[in-house]
Formats: sequence, structure tokens, C-alpha cells
Amino acid sequence: MSSDDLEIIGFDPLNAETPQSRLAESITPPESVYVRTNFGVPRLDADHHEIQIDGAVAAPFAIDVSELRQMPRISYANTMECAGNDRLSMRPVPRGEPWKGGAISTTSWTGVPLRDVLARASIADDAVEILVEGADCGERADADGKGPVRFARALPIADALAPQTLLALEMNGAPLTPVHGAPVRLVVPGWYGMASVKWVTRLSVLTTPYAGYFQTRRYVYKQGALIEPVRRMRVKSIIVAPADGVVANMGTLRVWGWAWSGDGTIERVEVAAGDGAWQPATLDARTSSHSWVRWQREITLERPGRLVLRSRAIDSSGAAQPDVAAWNELGYGNNAIQATIIDVRR
Amino acid sequence: MSSDDLEIIGFDPLNAETPQSRLAESITPPESVYVRTNFGVPRLDADHHEIQIDGAVAAPFAIDVSELRQMPRISYANTMECAGNDRLSMRPVPRGEPWKGGAISTTSWTGVPLRDVLARASIADDAVEILVEGADCGERADADGKGPVRFARALPIADALAPQTLLALEMNGAPLTPVHGAPVRLVVPGWYGMASVKWVTRLSVLTTPYAGYFQTRRYVYKQGALIEPVRRMRVKSIIVAPADGVVANMGTLRVWGWAWSGDGTIERVEVAAGDGAWQPATLDARTSSHSWVRWQREITLERPGRLVLRSRAIDSSGAAQPDVAAWNELGYGNNAIQATIIDVRR
Repeated sequence: MSSDDLEIIGFDPLNAETPQSRLAESITPPESVYVRTNFGVPRLDADHHEIQIDGAVAAPFAIDVSELRQMPRISYANTMECAGNDRLSMRPVPRGEPWKGGAISTTSWTGVPLRDVLARASIADDAVEILVEGADCGERADADGKGPVRFARALPIADALAPQTLLALEMNGAPLTPVHGAPVRLVVPGWYGMASVKWVTRLSVLTTPYAGYFQTRRYVYKQGALIEPVRRMRVKSIIVAPADGVVANMGTLRVWGWAWSGDGTIERVEVAAGDGAWQPATLDARTSSHSWVRWQREITLERPGRLVLRSRAIDSSGAAQPDVAAWNELGYGNNAIQATIIDVRR
Repeated sequence: MSSDDLEIIGFDPLNAETPQSRLAESITPPESVYVRTNFGVPRLDADHHEIQIDGAVAAPFAIDVSELRQMPRISYANTMECAGNDRLSMRPVPRGEPWKGGAISTTSWTGVPLRDVLARASIADDAVEILVEGADCGERADADGKGPVRFARALPIADALAPQTLLALEMNGAPLTPVHGAPVRLVVPGWYGMASVKWVTRLSVLTTPYAGYFQTRRYVYKQGALIEPVRRMRVKSIIVAPADGVVANMGTLRVWGWAWSGDGTIERVEVAAGDGAWQPATLDARTSSHSWVRWQREITLERPGRLVLRSRAIDSSGAAQPDVAAWNELGYGNNAIQATIIDVRR
């Protein structure tokens, strides 16, 4: 990985975002896929790694990666955004990793539907969640109890059994690399990235909701006593071109970018230039129901000087990007309308 | 003026901001002093230009610039900020000129105290405001009545008679240039720039408050039906170095910048790095009561990665910079705490 491939946020734990220039690709090049880790990167033995399946099941068992590779697999392109993406544009700046806007990537995932694996264990009728544990763990000063905290997230049973929730083995057609969860990770389409647990070691079927550290202390919209779990990706759009700071000549300019939502499909994207009205953009045909969709709009640059460009997306649930996202202590879910500033020349 | 001297916002009317690199100078180089105009730049004849003094006075008269030049003059350094400075970091982005953070400059002004000129006219006891008219005018679609609107602002009598409110003839030791108000402009220390009317043609003493376009329709904090005039500069600080995006080595780093307030003197500036606590900065001795004050703080860069630096100023009135400035429709008075993002390397 060269320094152009990723923008490093921190080394310990390793966090790095996709550079703005690489967001122009519909499928993010693998070396530029954003990396979010909470602890050190586990190095697991791909040939012997096992996943335990237990809890409220008729038949607990273990499956190793080589066995997983023999099961029927599916592939699809998926846009995944970190819940903390664009934290730095919230005010006051919340605590947490200082992500700008590059904690988002779109990749092709290949793997075994989680439900196919769970089916072999025969889940109890009163199951409510599947707890997914990663191999990554470490100390947390604000955790209850002593000892290291393990990264673990519980997924509601309906989402766990959805046909495209994967135990993924490959990203962009190649085996997962260690930073992306090798040898096997969960991929939950439509959800912010924290649901897609990496380095999966255990799947535990729960009949009561899980209340672990990464379920109730992190990845929650917290504002004083009010706590709400972070779940699906909020509707959002970004302008890919022109990039911020670009010099453009007067005349017509194509503005384009991506839009996505975990709550539905993108129905409409609009663009505004300066103090002008919102103008509809055209959307490309979708290639995957879980992948961002490209939008574009030609605008006319009528006068020289500084110009502010904005985009906003509206999804099939009726949700629209807000001017300002509700501030929360941990800085999650910032899907506010963003501004790209260009310099128009004669 | 070269393209490095100013960052152009627009040409018609001409608006341009001081580049961030030039904000390092305690006195802004004249070619890099921000320019804010509402209409075309008047070209007045410095040798024959007259100012009318009328209204509620015992003895109306006119004074020409050559006569003004014979009167006792004073000089001082003064920080002037446009009320719309940092409009672009408000959300939603308000209507108006798209200023980033460079609509601020500090210059030395030389001129005749306004009160010395007004004294010659003998102001009525019931005077409440001095209306100051500029030579600049133009059409405004949202103005009442027909015909061009003239730039004119009324100043409360106490501020008009304050000893350092000037009819300025020189900036940084040289005669005013056309874009800065030649041959004579008002300078009102402590107030946002709109009070410092350029190309002064008339001083009219009023016994009832003025309600013209630039007093009640622009330069007001407007939020629905709530309208409050913009007056003095809110307490604010900026980080000059390190600049945003700088790569710094681990170890100690001097962070420095400027702080100013129209509501008092700067009492305290604090700096925060990342999620760390606010740490006090040291302030330089003041050189002028109306000029920004330099602050600095050494911080320790302990780990590589992205780091957010913030500064906040507190003035002698007790006012402190807010995390978010109250949004208003025309985007004035944004004195929110800002963030500078650097990249720390081993």
C-alpha cells in the first residue's frame, strides 16, 4: 500500500480512508478500500480457522473455512460506509476517529449466505438476534468489568436471515486480506460498516437482545441520556466531480457523484449551484441494489468567481439528506448535505 | 494585484479575500487586504471630492478632502472582519457572498476623528445616529421603491463620537486605493466591516433611527420574523500555523494564531488537540487596542496519524467562541470554533 492508496487516520489501531480521487471508481480499488479497526489486526490461519455456531440452536457445530468455500456462494457489489464517516464536519467535533468523507467504499463481495450456515444448526423459534464475534479484542477504559473487550455485534434475526447477508470470503474477486477481515467476515448490506464484523470466530443465536460494549456503548446515537443504536446507512450523496478547489471555465460543467441509502433505493438527486434552486440530476441504471448509484447534472457557469455546489439525495422511504445531521456525542450518521467549492474562470 | 495576493470571490461586484498564507502577517500587506463591495467601485476625484454634513446640525457645511488632510490626524492598527466571513462553514450554507475565512485583515488607518468634523457642524442635542452615505449604488431587486439603492449605514451617536472612529485617508501609510474607499472612508473600530462605509459623500445627523436597505434588509441577523442588526465583531480566534493539511513530525509543535473581539479585549485563548482537554495559550502584549492579538501554545504530538487542532477565545465581556454560531438567513457573525487538521508523521 503506497501513501496515495489510503489516507491514514491512525496506525494503532489502523484506520485509513479512501482518498477522494479514488471515490471516482464505481468499484473501489482493493488497495484503497477504507480500513476501520478497533484493535490490532488478527492474523488468522485461513486453512484451519473455524467458526463456532452455538446458542439457541438444535445442533451446535463448527465450520472451517475450507468447508465454507465448498458451499454455494453468491457475489454482489455493495456500498459500505463507516458510521463515523464525515465526523469531522460535525460541530462541535465529536470524540472518535477523525474521519473526513472517505470512510466509504464500494466493493464486490463473494461469500456464503449467513442463513445457509445457520440453517445447518436449526435456530430456535424464539431467536431474536445472531451475535457475531470477531477475533479482535483489546482493553477499553470505559468498559464494564475487567479484561479485554472483544468486538462483537448482534444482528436482528430478520437481517441475519436476509438472502444477501454474507459470510464473505472474497473482496473484489480475491481472498480477503488481513485488514479486511481474513479469512471470513460478515457483510450486512444496507447497514453501516460496524455490522459487518471482521475475522468472524463465532455465531451465537440469542433469545434476548445483546447488550455488549460495541452494541450499547459504541455505535449508538448518544445525546445525554438518549441512546439509540446505529443501524442502517442514512440516505446520502457525494459530489465526485468537480473536486473541491477545482478551477473550471465558464460554460457548461457536468457535476456528478454517487448516492446511496440503507433505507431504500435512491429516487432522486438534486443539485444546487450558488444561491440557485435545486435542479434534478439524472440517475444511471442500477447495477446492484446494494451499490451506490451514479448521478449527474449539467449546470451552466454564468459568471467568474467562487461557486458553491451542493447535492442532496432522496430515497424511496421519503428520507432526504438534511442541511445539518443531528449532533450526537460519538459523531455517527452524518449524512448532511455537503458543499463543494469551485473557482470559475472566464 | 496578482492572483496570489487575493482570492477572488466574484468580479461584479468585486469581492476577494485575504489568502490564508497572508494571515500570518500582523499587518496585512495592502495588496492582500480583503475587498468587499456591494456595487461597482466609484472612481472619485481625490482633489475635489466633498463630504456634505447636514441633518440635525446648527451649521451644515461641506468639507473637501484637501481640507480634511489639514486637520489633526491619528493612526492606529485595526482588525476588520466582514460580517459574512466564514459564511461557507455555516449549514445550511446561507445566501450571500461565499466567504471562507479570509474576509478579515488588520491594517493601520490614518485619518481625522469623525467627531472633530461633526463638532464643526454643532450636532443637535437629540441626535441619535449619524447616517454615513457612500458614493456606491446600484439596483437591488428586493429594495422598496424604484431606482438604485445607495450604500448607507447609520452609526449610533456614541460610536460616531468615539475618539477613534475615523474619516480615514490612508491605509498602511499610503492614500486609500479605489477599492478600499478612496479618497475617504469611515473606520469604526470593533464593528464588523459594513459599518466602515467607503467613498463617504455625506454625513447626516439623525434624530430618529435610520431604516434604509443596508440597515434593515442586509447586515441583520435574520431568522424568520426575528431581525437584529449586526453590530460589533463577535469574539473569535483563528489558527494561522500549522495550516490545514500540514504534515508535522512527532514531538513538540508550536500552534499560533490571532484572536480578536469587538466586545472587549481578549482575555484567554485555549487550544485543544484531538480529544484532549483545552490548554491555555500565551498571549503576546497588545500593540493596539483594536488589533488582533497573537496567541501561541506548544503542544506535543504523541502519535502518528490525523490530528484535529482547535482554538477558542474568551473576551473581557465573558463571551467565548461557541461550538456552532446561531444560524441566520444571511449568514452573518460566524465566530464558531474552527478545526485545523494536520497529519502527524513519525
